[in-house]
Amino acid sequence: MSLLEDKGVNTTPISKLGEFGLIDHLTKNIEIKNTSSVKGIGDDAAVIDMGERYQLVSTDLLVEGVHFDLSYMPLKHLGYKSVAVNVSDICAMNGAAKQITVGLAMSNRFTVEALDELYEGIKLACAHYGVDLVGGDTTSSTAGLMISVTVLGEVEKESIVYRSGAKVNDLVVCTGDLGAAYLGLQLLNREKEMFKENPTMQPDLTGNDYVLRRQLKPEAGVKYIDILKELEIVPTSMIDISDGLSSEVLHLAKSSNVGITIHEDKIPVDYTAMNLANEFNMNPIFCALSGGEDYELLFTVSQAHYDKLKKDADFTIVGYVTDASEGNNFIANDGSSHPLTAQGWDAMKK
Amino acid sequence: MSLLEDKGVNTTPISKLGEFGLIDHLTKNIEIKNTSSVKGIGDDAAVIDMGERYQLVSTDLLVEGVHFDLSYMPLKHLGYKSVAVNVSDICAMNGAAKQITVGLAMSNRFTVEALDELYEGIKLACAHYGVDLVGGDTTSSTAGLMISVTVLGEVEKESIVYRSGAKVNDLVVCTGDLGAAYLGLQLLNREKEMFKENPTMQPDLTGNDYVLRRQLKPEAGVKYIDILKELEIVPTSMIDISDGLSSEVLHLAKSSNVGITIHEDKIPVDYTAMNLANEFNMNPIFCALSGGEDYELLFTVSQAHYDKLKKDADFTIVGYVTDASEGNNFIANDGSSHPLTAQGWDAMKK
Repeated sequence: MSLLEDKGVNTTPISKLGEFGLIDHLTKNIEIKNTSSVKGIGDDAAVIDMGERYQLVSTDLLVEGVHFDLSYMPLKHLGYKSVAVNVSDICAMNGAAKQITVGLAMSNRFTVEALDELYEGIKLACAHYGVDLVGGDTTSSTAGLMISVTVLGEVEKESIVYRSGAKVNDLVVCTGDLGAAYLGLQLLNREKEMFKENPTMQPDLTGNDYVLRRQLKPEAGVKYIDILKELEIVPTSMIDISDGLSSEVLHLAKSSNVGITIHEDKIPVDYTAMNLANEFNMNPIFCALSGGEDYELLFTVSQAHYDKLKKDADFTIVGYVTDASEGNNFIANDGSSHPLTAQGWDAMKK
Repeated sequence: MSLLEDKGVNTTPISKLGEFGLIDHLTKNIEIKNTSSVKGIGDDAAVIDMGERYQLVSTDLLVEGVHFDLSYMPLKHLGYKSVAVNVSDICAMNGAAKQITVGLAMSNRFTVEALDELYEGIKLACAHYGVDLVGGDTTSSTAGLMISVTVLGEVEKESIVYRSGAKVNDLVVCTGDLGAAYLGLQLLNREKEMFKENPTMQPDLTGNDYVLRRQLKPEAGVKYIDILKELEIVPTSMIDISDGLSSEVLHLAKSSNVGITIHEDKIPVDYTAMNLANEFNMNPIFCALSGGEDYELLFTVSQAHYDKLKKDADFTIVGYVTDASEGNNFIANDGSSHPLTAQGWDAMKK
């Protein structure tokens, strides 16, 4: 239509840049000017000066057909997850989540009862994480369900952790175990395909409670933040593992201007996830590196904390920080070294 | 699929509740627990205690096909508008917007160049309103464009204005003029239909710059907040006029537990909007009452401020506050009184 100028010659597809490339492209040259704006785009959360403390702000979108499939994702779980993944961003800055706002856009195929279930999950997560639901917006959409959550958190000024503080010789540490959420997704997709072929079939999910829970009801790493506080450890850098270990390692290394080397034999994988990976003929380490949605934390700390971390089964030392000139490397079980590449789960390329 | 419990018997359509009914339904029984959460759902913005000042937080979604039509809404204008409507919520609390986060979900029909235009508008509005773009999320969608903006603002504790403070005998005041944004939309829709029938036709928008600007590039009422400060007026209650005057009058009355009477002959309508309404055979007062998207401010003040307000052409006294028992009334030009009903623009019923 003539009211909208046609710029037919400029047609770079978004997929050419990918999610991170697009964000870099759109947000380059953005300056922050207000004195209360401490840190803008480029970390897990923005940082606002509240006076005595810092406030942390992060926004995440969950889009039907991109981030979730309602054929196997119960709405209550989806509500819970939409809060948990945002709280995870606050954990990644070493902070505590305090408030959320929830924006919902949904088509008229959703009933009031369906939204009640979604909200039940949101409220459950709010209660679990001590977060207040303080606002939002609810509207219709022409197709599908979209959830936009903004979380506000707080952190003592001296305790804030950015992606950018990793130092040469620091230890690289991850919490919990990796790859299970991705394997849970593979399992749900397989059962969905089998159900399509034979709708009378009951899904066979026996023995896979853990990977399913990791996919359907992930938890933010609040407990790890509490343990670090007890141990009197402030990481030098931190990020949450939403897109797979390799992608997050590269983010920390780039932001901190260092190199990171990780060891295959150190990467923690749950044994039920390991078994399922074998069943799928997948490499479980690949799932950990590139799977995504584990919502564990990846951080770097001074070697001075080695003994404290070593004793605690919640943490696994997976590598160490090097000079940037050494690049980012993956040491395989056979001792061979490989440059680490970003194969993190990339929502834009789907 | 059997993994998702089928609740076939409970199928209340969302349209049965409408937008405000649905929000009331979903958010009833929500308590706020953190000491920093001062005010949750139920006003133009949530209120967070920052220590010295209050922080204001508001989220708005703009969904393609519901809130905007890209066949006549240039992406740059859309970006600008998505910021302005959020800043408007902060104005409604008598505050100043400081930061925003922007969440974007878009299908692969959008090119990088299209998003650049959208961001150009967002950045322009940020510069105009002195707001820092501090974060966001960008992802794909299966269809259409969705913009989620969360705005953070600040206000001195003694200057915050809620919807709930209107007192009997207060004056009811609105800023600027009303109905033009809705008439701009009618005009754009008419030209779109005519273009569909005859694509070689050039749209005839002569003389209608004002109503088009009100629809395509609305401004938040920052200047009115500044003038009120200069006049040393703190309203007793305030709301922004996003859904039409009648809807906002009812919100203020309900939140303040009062009645409000407004006079037809006082409602400010721009003369070009008036002419266009006549062309469309529409009642311009209906457009002001029920049209929406004007983003003017509606507030109540003590009668002590009458002289100061009377002198300033930015403000129009449209009515007065009564006891709740008198209800909400519309006094027509012929002197007849009618109960005021919510016919505000309701995104859920479309």
